[in-house]
Amino acid sequence: MDTALLNSINSPKDLQLLGPSQLPQLAKELRQFIIDVVAVKEGHLGASLGVVELTIALHYVFNTPDDLLVWDVGHQAYGHKILTGRKDFFHTNRQLDGLSGFPKRSESKFDTFGVGHASTSISAALGMAIASHLKGDFEKQHIAVIGDASIAGGMAFEGLNHAGVTDANLLIILNDNTMGIDPSVGALKKYLTNIKTNKRVRKHNIIEALNFDYSGPIDGHDLNAVINELERLKSVRGPRFLHVITTKGKGLQKAEQDQITYHAPGKFDKITGERIQNTGAKKGIKFQDVFGLTLLELARKNKSIVGITAAMSTGTSLKYMLKEIPERAFDVGIAEQHAITLSAGMATQGLTVFCAIYSTFLQRAYDQIIHDVALQNLPVIFCIDRAGIVGEDGATHHGIFDLAYLRCIPNMVIFAPLNAKDLRNMLYTAQLEVFKQPLAIRYPRGECAIVNWKTAFEKIKLGKGLCLKNGETIAVLSIGAIGRNVTEAIKKLNAEIEPKVAHYDMRFVKPLDEKLVRTIFNKFETIVTVEDGVLKGGFGSAILEFANAQKSDTPKILCLGVPDAFIHHGSVLELHQQIGIDSDSIAQLISKEIAL
Amino acid sequence: MDTALLNSINSPKDLQLLGPSQLPQLAKELRQFIIDVVAVKEGHLGASLGVVELTIALHYVFNTPDDLLVWDVGHQAYGHKILTGRKDFFHTNRQLDGLSGFPKRSESKFDTFGVGHASTSISAALGMAIASHLKGDFEKQHIAVIGDASIAGGMAFEGLNHAGVTDANLLIILNDNTMGIDPSVGALKKYLTNIKTNKRVRKHNIIEALNFDYSGPIDGHDLNAVINELERLKSVRGPRFLHVITTKGKGLQKAEQDQITYHAPGKFDKITGERIQNTGAKKGIKFQDVFGLTLLELARKNKSIVGITAAMSTGTSLKYMLKEIPERAFDVGIAEQHAITLSAGMATQGLTVFCAIYSTFLQRAYDQIIHDVALQNLPVIFCIDRAGIVGEDGATHHGIFDLAYLRCIPNMVIFAPLNAKDLRNMLYTAQLEVFKQPLAIRYPRGECAIVNWKTAFEKIKLGKGLCLKNGETIAVLSIGAIGRNVTEAIKKLNAEIEPKVAHYDMRFVKPLDEKLVRTIFNKFETIVTVEDGVLKGGFGSAILEFANAQKSDTPKILCLGVPDAFIHHGSVLELHQQIGIDSDSIAQLISKEIAL
Repeated sequence: MDTALLNSINSPKDLQLLGPSQLPQLAKELRQFIIDVVAVKEGHLGASLGVVELTIALHYVFNTPDDLLVWDVGHQAYGHKILTGRKDFFHTNRQLDGLSGFPKRSESKFDTFGVGHASTSISAALGMAIASHLKGDFEKQHIAVIGDASIAGGMAFEGLNHAGVTDANLLIILNDNTMGIDPSVGALKKYLTNIKTNKRVRKHNIIEALNFDYSGPIDGHDLNAVINELERLKSVRGPRFLHVITTKGKGLQKAEQDQITYHAPGKFDKITGERIQNTGAKKGIKFQDVFGLTLLELARKNKSIVGITAAMSTGTSLKYMLKEIPERAFDVGIAEQHAITLSAGMATQGLTVFCAIYSTFLQRAYDQIIHDVALQNLPVIFCIDRAGIVGEDGATHHGIFDLAYLRCIPNMVIFAPLNAKDLRNMLYTAQLEVFKQPLAIRYPRGECAIVNWKTAFEKIKLGKGLCLKNGETIAVLSIGAIGRNVTEAIKKLNAEIEPKVAHYDMRFVKPLDEKLVRTIFNKFETIVTVEDGVLKGGFGSAILEFANAQKSDTPKILCLGVPDAFIHHGSVLELHQQIGIDSDSIAQLISKEIAL
Repeated sequence: MDTALLNSINSPKDLQLLGPSQLPQLAKELRQFIIDVVAVKEGHLGASLGVVELTIALHYVFNTPDDLLVWDVGHQAYGHKILTGRKDFFHTNRQLDGLSGFPKRSESKFDTFGVGHASTSISAALGMAIASHLKGDFEKQHIAVIGDASIAGGMAFEGLNHAGVTDANLLIILNDNTMGIDPSVGALKKYLTNIKTNKRVRKHNIIEALNFDYSGPIDGHDLNAVINELERLKSVRGPRFLHVITTKGKGLQKAEQDQITYHAPGKFDKITGERIQNTGAKKGIKFQDVFGLTLLELARKNKSIVGITAAMSTGTSLKYMLKEIPERAFDVGIAEQHAITLSAGMATQGLTVFCAIYSTFLQRAYDQIIHDVALQNLPVIFCIDRAGIVGEDGATHHGIFDLAYLRCIPNMVIFAPLNAKDLRNMLYTAQLEVFKQPLAIRYPRGECAIVNWKTAFEKIKLGKGLCLKNGETIAVLSIGAIGRNVTEAIKKLNAEIEPKVAHYDMRFVKPLDEKLVRTIFNKFETIVTVEDGVLKGGFGSAILEFANAQKSDTPKILCLGVPDAFIHHGSVLELHQQIGIDSDSIAQLISKEIAL
């Protein structure tokens, strides 16, 4: 295809040299470039295709990077990256040492604010706008581009509520495609849809009520319309709000038709859009599907079960229950805080609530976990997906803090399944209501080695660990699915060393199996703890705290886990290697210790 | 005064026996009872006085506790407690083993949901309402009473957004008195005020846009009007919203006139309302005032300084800067998430942002601290007030998790001043921008022993602890203001023991002064760590982690701090005694250790 125009653009300055009539061709080239690269390199597709025209218009009209542009979430920022000098590196997107999949301050001065989680852009852009005013700069423009799913998040409302009483030079652009990763939900979404079709509603709408100068809705794929409106808004002062209608996946038929799948479709045929199925051997079932399918199975029989997710019905696989038992499954949208306290409210009435949220997003509901669930000792079951290193999504998405931030909360039980079977059995055990207190079940992104996972249910004993392999001098204590790396590591040891190494799957970070740990302390010279989370305050620390509380001498303890630094993007294996919790690193460490 | 009616009421059942004409007299008695008790026992006054009529009407019309009533925050629930069987214990309010100052599930079946933090009631009540529907109960009523400050919190919006697309039997009552603890702020508050005066705005308002059946505004002190409207709403189905106008402090002139002071006025004359000043010797300045006054002093000279608070301008003493330099000081309302990301946005533009939030409320912004500040290594300065045990406010308000939940975040510096001087000097040092990374300064509620605190500024060295007292065999390592208890404890030791005990003020939890700790490890037989926070993952754990990383033998380490249980209400001293971190307990522990 012709890429002459796109090739001529190394920064928005180049873009601004084009005549308006050339922009549709540029849009075509940019869209195709995104499709071509993502088709083979994978990544987020639909969101960026939807804002191709908007991205061009923004960099055409505004004077970036002096004018400050903040993308909410950042799934949609590929076009932005390509137009701001990163076209030639775009094929390294999401790879180790390559471009980040999200805007990132350290990557480019055009990325004014790092994102990944939703609903932050209004607050960030408002902060920038107030700063400019204080510095006497009343000309600088501050623009937040936020989707209709993200604007329903509580902190976006907090930002609007504040911005509306300022005279900040702030432009909020609502990129309304009625989709997050899954379809948007909630009363606001319904209302926004209403605005589009009903002129009466449009007058005196919610946004105006919050003191914004509202304009739109306009067609976000009509370059002229968008440019004209942005030009007009440039000279308006105070908080402004432009409502833009776009189509997620625009320009690739398959992506427009199946917007959920094509949010991040994996590899696909760049012409037909047909997804290229992984032809490798089936590695096993995804942890998320073990959760989603087992929950459905349990919920069919146990009518007190409800499932809750916050805008991640596909990602957490709650979709199975949402489809079959919609009256007991809830997608509350990007609203983790609400999800947890809603769960707490339900739990007071005796429902058995499974609340499935990614580890990194659960950070949003930290106070609600403490204040609404744990303090009242309500038996809410937190199903914490994407725990540990998640790989290509990088620093904003790793679920590495959960063990540390949950362990300090009284009443919490924290369990981490080694594999699909353990996850399945814990879901089963949880709904028997044997624990009568809050329960966190944390499991990783991706697949579990087990293919035949749908075994008969067995009850899991609270606070009991397991010996997976006996040994003599070194005991490796792992928590959760990272135990696979330990098992593999032990397989890699030479025949002399291997019998000396024991492996315990501790299962519970809290309550700790103190009896088992005491036995281990008595038997072994060296303990190695392995976790897929931060070392400060995590599972290893729990072992250290327990060791310190012992009256007698304790073995040497080595703690493996995420060091005190943010971990960026790359494959899970590469990042595990970086951290030293891949099987090779663990095997080397064990061999070295035995040799001492 | 005549209390015949009030005395006859031991539960809402008794209340429902009264005729409507008797209720104004009951309101009078209830109001006076609250005033009489709070005048001598202290507590929250204004909020409860404002809802006397509403409280009576709710328990008169609805069938509590079968109908489920959730109070948001709970400052306003004194009348509710008194009418639901707790009149005779009300004088024990907020005391050790007495009634909680907030609704609490373990205290009464009428307290359907424990509160303390704002904006949770809609989510909780919606959860209950959905649960009732699932159980086939379509008659049970679910009522959330929420103030106009709390409804502006992000999670309240999340709750509204969800509730609006359900058919839940949910009644939300907006108790609109234009006040939180400080006056409400934001675009929504402005809009609500508009609704009251402008009938055109009232039609098709924000609440209706979110799919609620809106009614009001009505006068919340007109018992008949409130009862009639509640009766009517009882038979309406689906999500309903009643807008009630009340006056905070209603019925006590002083409290109506000075609503901020009379939110929690301390002791006062029950007739005149005149506050009874503490006649004891001046103990020193409050930490919050050291913050507020020093920040003002610094901001006068350093024009890059901005101050931010989330609805706590009085409580954090940011009020001084808000008054004198309003263009650089911001009360963003109950919006901790927004406050932090706004701070991050400002910091990207080079402003020096001091964001003052209570420790317990900062839990609301955990994700924003990680994702928007620390990950981008932005030098936001978190001024964390009410850290440690706060006393009478109890379990919902203790600031005991911060060291654990912040310590695991990369890039964070965590400092805890021993006294006013250290706090002052750290505020000074922070604005010199020497650290270039996020900085948490955590200090307790209440007064600092120092009276003459306004000394010349001195720079504080990053990551350096101090030796406060030399010794021989035991070293006590304390962090922050709890170090006072250690100093007092050492004074209480006998002359033989005292010289053996050293005391180090570690100042920084992170980065830890490793050089100093190593020296201490080499010199002493026993180490005692003391912190006013949770043991799991806290400061003591940091010492244990460091000890474990040493190649050589380390001393015996004893960790004092908050155990793994929620701590309820009582005076700070009583609770410190419970935990074992008061000076007597520390002295005993040291004596016992020396004797070993």
